[in-house]
Amino acid sequence: MDEAAEQEIRAVVDERVRAVRAKDPGPLAARVDPGVVTFDVLPPLLQRGDAPVVAKLQHWFDGYASDIGYQVEALDVVADGDLGFCSFAYNVQGTLQSGDEVDMWVRATLGLRRIDGRWRIVHDHESVPFDPRTGHAVIDLAPGDAAR
Amino acid sequence: MDEAAEQEIRAVVDERVRAVRAKDPGPLAARVDPGVVTFDVLPPLLQRGDAPVVAKLQHWFDGYASDIGYQVEALDVVADGDLGFCSFAYNVQGTLQSGDEVDMWVRATLGLRRIDGRWRIVHDHESVPFDPRTGHAVIDLAPGDAAR
Repeated sequence: MDEAAEQEIRAVVDERVRAVRAKDPGPLAARVDPGVVTFDVLPPLLQRGDAPVVAKLQHWFDGYASDIGYQVEALDVVADGDLGFCSFAYNVQGTLQSGDEVDMWVRATLGLRRIDGRWRIVHDHESVPFDPRTGHAVIDLAPGDAAR
Repeated sequence: MDEAAEQEIRAVVDERVRAVRAKDPGPLAARVDPGVVTFDVLPPLLQRGDAPVVAKLQHWFDGYASDIGYQVEALDVVADGDLGFCSFAYNVQGTLQSGDEVDMWVRATLGLRRIDGRWRIVHDHESVPFDPRTGHAVIDLAPGDAAR
């Protein structure tokens, strides 16, 4: 594997953390490949292309009345040459414009290609597990928690 | 990118389809890297290592009274050298021992490394989206369906 490339992908994750905390869609939009395949936490099942991803960023940030807390744990990175992927869990926290409090753990997998010298996200899969007994999404499981 | 490697990863997905339809855990277990990081459809949030993955396979197959239908769509593969990842949606169908019918669409992302000449799954993220209005997992969205 390629330690320099892995460091660069860690830097992409750091950039994401800073941008979310700053509610700045710019760095996030600039990382997305035009042909990105997105499996998001919310429907639809899948989406192709960067337009819906970029359109959603400002809407996401505007939905928060408070600052957004965003913390990454359990980051694993694999890269070689111009290809890499990483996986991590993140905790997102804040108060929505509706007054509802958000505090959830999400899993994320990013697939990246280095194109013209710049790492771009070509695949983004984010999700929470669900409880088969209730059919409900489980949003309060932390990385160290065993199955319930 | 590396077309030969991409073909080999497509063959890993084909192998998975055949193994699930045959309820044969062998080929699936043999693909899993000992250090695999798993984000599964059901809790916990994340798991490390192949032991829980392999242990679950026979239990999963034994849960079905019927054959298991397993169909892959929207497969995308990127690979270069000894690294690759792929994403797809799959439909799983059948009748459980309880009599309940399963018919759901799931998103899957596999991260793979070629180690000693053999492609191994080092990361497996499988999920369904959830409806934020109800908190329920959405298991009946097909790949072509827009958000609801």
